[in-house]
Amino acid sequence: MKKLLYGVAYYDEYMPYERLSTDIEMMKTAGINLVRIAESTWSTHEPQNGVFDFSSVDRVLDAMHAAGIHVIVGTPTYAVPTWMVKEYPDVLAETPDGPGRYGARQIMDIANPTYLFYSERIIRKLIGRVCGHPAVIGYQVDNETKHYRTSGPNVQLRFVKYMKDKFGTLERLNREFGLDYWSNRINSWEDFPSAVGTINGSLGAEFARFQRQLVTEFLAWQASIVNEYKRPDQFVTHNFDFEWRGHSFGVQPDVDHFEAAKALDIAGVDIYHPSQDELTGKEISFGGDSTRSLKETNYFVLETQAQAFPNWTPYPGQLRLQAFSHLASGANMVEYWHWHSIHNSFETYWKGLLSHDLGTNPTYEEAATIGRDFARLSPRLVNLKKNNRAAVLVSNEALTALEWFKLPGGNVRYNDIVRLAYDRLYEMNIGCDIVHPGSSVAFEKYEIIVVPALYAASDELLERLNRYVENGGRVVYTFKSGFADEHIQVRTGVQPGLIEKACGIRYSQFVEPKNVTLKGDPFGVGEDRNGVGVWMELLTPTTAEVLAWYDHPHWGAYAAITSNRHGRGTATYIGCMPSEAVVGKLLERVCREAGLLGLDQELRFPLIVKSGTNEQGKTIRYYFNYSDEPKSFDYSHGEGKELLADRPIRSGERIELERWGVAIVESI
Amino acid sequence: MKKLLYGVAYYDEYMPYERLSTDIEMMKTAGINLVRIAESTWSTHEPQNGVFDFSSVDRVLDAMHAAGIHVIVGTPTYAVPTWMVKEYPDVLAETPDGPGRYGARQIMDIANPTYLFYSERIIRKLIGRVCGHPAVIGYQVDNETKHYRTSGPNVQLRFVKYMKDKFGTLERLNREFGLDYWSNRINSWEDFPSAVGTINGSLGAEFARFQRQLVTEFLAWQASIVNEYKRPDQFVTHNFDFEWRGHSFGVQPDVDHFEAAKALDIAGVDIYHPSQDELTGKEISFGGDSTRSLKETNYFVLETQAQAFPNWTPYPGQLRLQAFSHLASGANMVEYWHWHSIHNSFETYWKGLLSHDLGTNPTYEEAATIGRDFARLSPRLVNLKKNNRAAVLVSNEALTALEWFKLPGGNVRYNDIVRLAYDRLYEMNIGCDIVHPGSSVAFEKYEIIVVPALYAASDELLERLNRYVENGGRVVYTFKSGFADEHIQVRTGVQPGLIEKACGIRYSQFVEPKNVTLKGDPFGVGEDRNGVGVWMELLTPTTAEVLAWYDHPHWGAYAAITSNRHGRGTATYIGCMPSEAVVGKLLERVCREAGLLGLDQELRFPLIVKSGTNEQGKTIRYYFNYSDEPKSFDYSHGEGKELLADRPIRSGERIELERWGVAIVESI
Amino acid sequence: MKKLLYGVAYYDEYMPYERLSTDIEMMKTAGINLVRIAESTWSTHEPQNGVFDFSSVDRVLDAMHAAGIHVIVGTPTYAVPTWMVKEYPDVLAETPDGPGRYGARQIMDIANPTYLFYSERIIRKLIGRVCGHPAVIGYQVDNETKHYRTSGPNVQLRFVKYMKDKFGTLERLNREFGLDYWSNRINSWEDFPSAVGTINGSLGAEFARFQRQLVTEFLAWQASIVNEYKRPDQFVTHNFDFEWRGHSFGVQPDVDHFEAAKALDIAGVDIYHPSQDELTGKEISFGGDSTRSLKETNYFVLETQAQAFPNWTPYPGQLRLQAFSHLASGANMVEYWHWHSIHNSFETYWKGLLSHDLGTNPTYEEAATIGRDFARLSPRLVNLKKNNRAAVLVSNEALTALEWFKLPGGNVRYNDIVRLAYDRLYEMNIGCDIVHPGSSVAFEKYEIIVVPALYAASDELLERLNRYVENGGRVVYTFKSGFADEHIQVRTGVQPGLIEKACGIRYSQFVEPKNVTLKGDPFGVGEDRNGVGVWMELLTPTTAEVLAWYDHPHWGAYAAITSNRHGRGTATYIGCMPSEAVVGKLLERVCREAGLLGLDQELRFPLIVKSGTNEQGKTIRYYFNYSDEPKSFDYSHGEGKELLADRPIRSGERIELERWGVAIVESI
Repeated sequence: MKKLLYGVAYYDEYMPYERLSTDIEMMKTAGINLVRIAESTWSTHEPQNGVFDFSSVDRVLDAMHAAGIHVIVGTPTYAVPTWMVKEYPDVLAETPDGPGRYGARQIMDIANPTYLFYSERIIRKLIGRVCGHPAVIGYQVDNETKHYRTSGPNVQLRFVKYMKDKFGTLERLNREFGLDYWSNRINSWEDFPSAVGTINGSLGAEFARFQRQLVTEFLAWQASIVNEYKRPDQFVTHNFDFEWRGHSFGVQPDVDHFEAAKALDIAGVDIYHPSQDELTGKEISFGGDSTRSLKETNYFVLETQAQAFPNWTPYPGQLRLQAFSHLASGANMVEYWHWHSIHNSFETYWKGLLSHDLGTNPTYEEAATIGRDFARLSPRLVNLKKNNRAAVLVSNEALTALEWFKLPGGNVRYNDIVRLAYDRLYEMNIGCDIVHPGSSVAFEKYEIIVVPALYAASDELLERLNRYVENGGRVVYTFKSGFADEHIQVRTGVQPGLIEKACGIRYSQFVEPKNVTLKGDPFGVGEDRNGVGVWMELLTPTTAEVLAWYDHPHWGAYAAITSNRHGRGTATYIGCMPSEAVVGKLLERVCREAGLLGLDQELRFPLIVKSGTNEQGKTIRYYFNYSDEPKSFDYSHGEGKELLADRPIRSGERIELERWGVAIVESI
Repeated sequence: MKKLLYGVAYYDEYMPYERLSTDIEMMKTAGINLVRIAESTWSTHEPQNGVFDFSSVDRVLDAMHAAGIHVIVGTPTYAVPTWMVKEYPDVLAETPDGPGRYGARQIMDIANPTYLFYSERIIRKLIGRVCGHPAVIGYQVDNETKHYRTSGPNVQLRFVKYMKDKFGTLERLNREFGLDYWSNRINSWEDFPSAVGTINGSLGAEFARFQRQLVTEFLAWQASIVNEYKRPDQFVTHNFDFEWRGHSFGVQPDVDHFEAAKALDIAGVDIYHPSQDELTGKEISFGGDSTRSLKETNYFVLETQAQAFPNWTPYPGQLRLQAFSHLASGANMVEYWHWHSIHNSFETYWKGLLSHDLGTNPTYEEAATIGRDFARLSPRLVNLKKNNRAAVLVSNEALTALEWFKLPGGNVRYNDIVRLAYDRLYEMNIGCDIVHPGSSVAFEKYEIIVVPALYAASDELLERLNRYVENGGRVVYTFKSGFADEHIQVRTGVQPGLIEKACGIRYSQFVEPKNVTLKGDPFGVGEDRNGVGVWMELLTPTTAEVLAWYDHPHWGAYAAITSNRHGRGTATYIGCMPSEAVVGKLLERVCREAGLLGLDQELRFPLIVKSGTNEQGKTIRYYFNYSDEPKSFDYSHGEGKELLADRPIRSGERIELERWGVAIVESI
Repeated sequence: MKKLLYGVAYYDEYMPYERLSTDIEMMKTAGINLVRIAESTWSTHEPQNGVFDFSSVDRVLDAMHAAGIHVIVGTPTYAVPTWMVKEYPDVLAETPDGPGRYGARQIMDIANPTYLFYSERIIRKLIGRVCGHPAVIGYQVDNETKHYRTSGPNVQLRFVKYMKDKFGTLERLNREFGLDYWSNRINSWEDFPSAVGTINGSLGAEFARFQRQLVTEFLAWQASIVNEYKRPDQFVTHNFDFEWRGHSFGVQPDVDHFEAAKALDIAGVDIYHPSQDELTGKEISFGGDSTRSLKETNYFVLETQAQAFPNWTPYPGQLRLQAFSHLASGANMVEYWHWHSIHNSFETYWKGLLSHDLGTNPTYEEAATIGRDFARLSPRLVNLKKNNRAAVLVSNEALTALEWFKLPGGNVRYNDIVRLAYDRLYEMNIGCDIVHPGSSVAFEKYEIIVVPALYAASDELLERLNRYVENGGRVVYTFKSGFADEHIQVRTGVQPGLIEKACGIRYSQFVEPKNVTLKGDPFGVGEDRNGVGVWMELLTPTTAEVLAWYDHPHWGAYAAITSNRHGRGTATYIGCMPSEAVVGKLLERVCREAGLLGLDQELRFPLIVKSGTNEQGKTIRYYFNYSDEPKSFDYSHGEGKELLADRPIRSGERIELERWGVAIVESI
């Protein structure tokens, strides 16, 4: 990118009255230099089968170009028109709940050839029409694509062929998936039952993996079409999103982001997060780290909240804090969903930068200050390079496996454990990358890799992690890691599987903790935070040092948390679900050993610092105050310049941050 | 009506053994002078297609006539016989959950011509047979009619035609409903998708309105058939019911009572309410005011509880209190559902006046005292005329709209806000009428109109309310009023829409309150009751006086409750959901300004007073003690007579009410 | 049985690698002398339609025989192979949720002739092959059979014929089921609607009874086939199970155990129960008493937990405590489900005696001590005869009826009331049998019969209970008893129906208690335990003595608990749901009167004592410490021998039990 992009999703089609010139005027005032259009209005652009009307696209492109605002054009394929569903009801995905029903978006079968035929036609018509337009800087293929649980007969047939390809023989499949159990054995490919009703976790998880592959293929197919039209100065992107818990939370269960991102030029992301008193920056950071890691470079925030819900309407200052937080993680774009609040239909209370009255409002006015700063500071802030020395390893396979074999109570899920670890690193101001089982990145590049609940993993991956430790790395595993292979077959040897070697522990029993604490409060966190929840493995150290024992009348002989020297590195193993405080203390201990606790790590949440190197080779440090109170700290690096106020900063100088405040210091 | 009717629903068909003469004897003892029969026993009266057997009707009519007990005959159409469903399964309503399944009542498609054919035949056979019988004083058409979510292809087809009629062009429809959103645009009438799956709130709400219209048409059609047979001295009625929350709660979502009542001679109602320690009279009052307002005159309570559920079995005195409370709202009939407790099937624990042993019991014995008083006092109490100076405006459209666009959390719904206001007026002994968007009643007849959450409203209605204020009226709006038009399109101008003029406020943002109170406890309700819940609009007064500000670190600059002088009247606006106490204080303030606080309003709940004028032109005042403790008060009106004890009352005399007690004073 | 059996369910087919000889070696070490095989691996034994492969059966039989381990062979019919479902999808049960979906076990229609044809063939092939093998000591027909809610057209057709047979005429059916209600009347057999959607409780309950009969017929049919092959020294058994609330809880709603057991030689049972701090022995005792009562003799525990779930992993000592508790109730076999923890599929976390690593572990090691003790003490402990003087009467019909007519709130169900009574007897060390409406056992054999919530009962049963009291018996009824007849028609006479005579009380009203206690704490249980919950009948004593009155401002004139002398016996009636403490005190009072409080009853839970007579005619007393603290008590019987430690015990000697400890004393 040549500059920071500050954008909005723009829907001329949704406007209650003619607004284009007024909107553009208000965008210019706010420093908006990008709009995304067209990704959800197929029925407007193709009102009848084969009848096209791109007038709203044309007029918006021309007007934006005239105003110097760039445009990303989305392929409008994630919401199908009524005529298509009337003509071909089969384009709707059949799911475990039955045939589809028209109404919402994201209800079609992304493997259906009728849908694919019409998708290709509208893509070629639209992209072919706009690709030469000077306003267009790139394309978004589809929107938040998932597989929508498609599992009808066509998908099942392809799945059987996929299984044949992958496993070769049913003998092997029956064995690796344990299908003799409950008479599930398949003795002829013709007998292969629908995966929909299966109770076999291996089969269910394999089907989920197959469904994720459908997403990868679909996005690659779209990108390949758009690539035929794309100019050399244009890009293809897509807005990935995350597990949704009322906001972006963690690893997306239905998409393999790493695989799917391969077809893109630039990775994009949608990040929605709690706000007001619940604004912590954690989701911004996690979403940013995840997306930057996809292609190991800068990324786009293609959607994030402006006003959004009543409980998210930002306090004064928060919109600024959020925008610069995105940049601090390596984003080159901050784009709001969306420009204006919609007056009808469904997402009426997911408010845009403008309220329904389409006039100015406090949030819009704050955006204008961001637009000005972005424009002014773009040369210093664009293309921030990060060089993190810590990583968190996440896995779609482990997530799916833990959905099939839930932790007791069912409330703590894979992403809770990911976030339990990630959030502690965030609070300590340890910058992280996100790696995954298929990462081509050398693990050795990191001082520490945190591995939450790696429940399903191949021998190869566990051995790679063992080698990483041997070579001097530091791994921190949580409970459940190493337990099962990539087909979710529990390993038949001593637990925790192959990593037992690096971890220096073993166990054969595990229980649900009730009134269990860590003996003697070994991390000094106090009684309230010394408890153990959800799961405890009864660890016996072989070579490991015990960092914590369980305190319990019957399980007191077993270890809870251990650390083991292996080769030139260490492997830490957390055999239970401790409190956030304990995880924090433990990670701090490992980070200290790894030499990751520098000056920036003397600050702690709610004071967040993120850094990187700009195009001028200078260090940029963002300081964020994620609290409702003013905060101050001593700037302890060498001389610099605070960019927002454009004033010099001396080493040792006290920097004051107002509530929800930001400072950006460039080294000199 | 010539006299008060005291009745029971009577099912000779359900009796476990021959009971008719015993039952009549027990009815006479209890003063029962009315029974309703036949409304749910189609399969008994038409055991096979075209084979009729009205012997149970005949014998009951003859026996009742001989005993001097009047009979209302119901058309037996709300529960279809097994033979019909076997022959024509399509008579069952297809709903969003799929095809119907035989078993319960109210499961048919009220638009299905097969059902209508057989319904018409049984109506003509039954009503034609009984219309000349001297026992029959009137008819109930169907029973608690709703649309039962019927939405199969035939209903959808009619809906499309209705939409064509109403909107003319798809262009207009697409625009007013915002159908471009998520590619929902309809570009050809042939493409019109089933309303069942829609996510478009405007479309969904319009379908709900259409479904309500089916109910109106169905009842009018039934009434038109019955009218062919009706003698001049007979009436047609129907028992409307309410949103059900384990008891009658508020506006019925599935029926437009005002429209549907047009086809009737007398409006009827079913009122079920909490009892024992939870008996407050609020549902009796709300249900009565609602139903009296339908035709602006006296009404029938066609069903109310005798013993009913274990948690409703009345305490001694409560059955009397309830019966007179119905009269005090303008009822000319109190009819129990039902005479005897049913021994099998489904509603076995919804007990009647008689328990399963069919003998006497304390509740039955208390009913006998009511029967005696009704008979004795009928000339003084029948046809009570009310002249209320306050009204509450309710709207099916606003209710539906708030179902589509729910308040945060989803627990506070339209009727909660209606009841928040209505119940406060009740507690202050302010008599109310219920008005609605289509009311032909002049608003100007009222000193005050309370308008809860009028979320969806036409320009015309809002302007009518503005004019009402200009002309000297007092409106009290709650939050969400004026926000959207009648198609639930959010208004594109400044909020709260057109009523901004009368209210003298504006806002463009709203949030979900967390730890928000009203600054300085302006209504003096104490800390516990000074909080704000669920919703808060960030009001900026233009001309309004601010009655309460928010207390919050960021939203403190905005107003919560305002009052504005406009023309000769005032408009009060409540921008948030305050406590019951605050709403009470606020309404008291407005009522005081309106001159509604007279002598009766010096009493407060649990002492309830309701008044009206009897046929002799005398003022009748009912005094109710809705508590488990004896209460007394000074009778402050002019000299009168307490009718129950038949003794004179002097002005200033102390009247003692036992727990759950009643007194009725007629002015002299 | 000639000896105690200590067994495991063994699945050679599920093993991740060749394990047979290792497993057998480990079994021998642990004293395992029995395995159950083959009951859930149809798809392995018949990989294609008509192609059979019993190699895993053959090799296991041979190897077990060589090791001296007995084998029970199960018919593999409770989980159908994929090929069958592909060829004949109709073998899956159609349920109220729609057609079946392949995946889990227990999803077929047990009335489907295709399923029955293939079942018969695999049974004949398998049993015909193994019946002569010397390792085989018996057979289990099917596994935890239920009706799986099968209710498709074939089942409905049979149900109609069943109804015709049972009721003869529709006139009678309509009358007894009250079908006139809501137009449910059936006037022609052709019109008979599917029972699936019915709202008529009588009809719904009759259908449930018919479905239970399908189970009885199915098991009898399987047994009749196996009997053709069975050697004289072999037996047929089946593993019944219970209502499941995360563990075995109470009467099985879907099976009439007493009827179904008639076709078996030996009754078997699956008992799963809470463990760790929640281990009380109550489910072991209830399950044992229930199953012993089926054929009035010793029984098999065919499945119980080894390690099972994380929250069930036994504390040290608990596995022993459990094993001997089963023997103390009359079990001749303790068999774990299952030998090894499964590595894939669904029940991966329902762990066996071996963990996933298939090596030794603390639970396995404790099992080995049990195996040794079983082998050594088998001659003293096998075939324990019990002679209980108390019984609890349970009824499938009452259970089903209370599901149709739920108690307020829906949380307290039939089995809660059964367990409320049963558990109190257990805590007092009163040995119990379980009797049922069809019991051929003379009630007179018992001093006391406790009758929980006998909501639906025939005249005949109630009169039998009345006679029992007349003859000197003691009945303790809870609320709801006697209320309805066997068709769930509420009795039309005074309540509690026919037992009013024995109980000396009557009532016609009942309410839901709120803030109600027993007046004056008549059982001295303290304020916290003196409350009344869920249900209260307003009892008026006729001849009964009142043991407790309600304390309530309005219901204080009514009795809560009464006792009535009738003939030579007494009938106690509990008209409400009191606390466990009150029920305990009341039952203690009745047991004292009945002379059931002997030396053993001086001990109370957590010290549990169970006794019987062994084959040598000696009294065996088991002493169990169901607590996490050591306990001791004075042995007050005559001289004996403690069998586990093999040491003499003098009368009056103090016996120490470690936490979760066991002692077994044989009288001399």
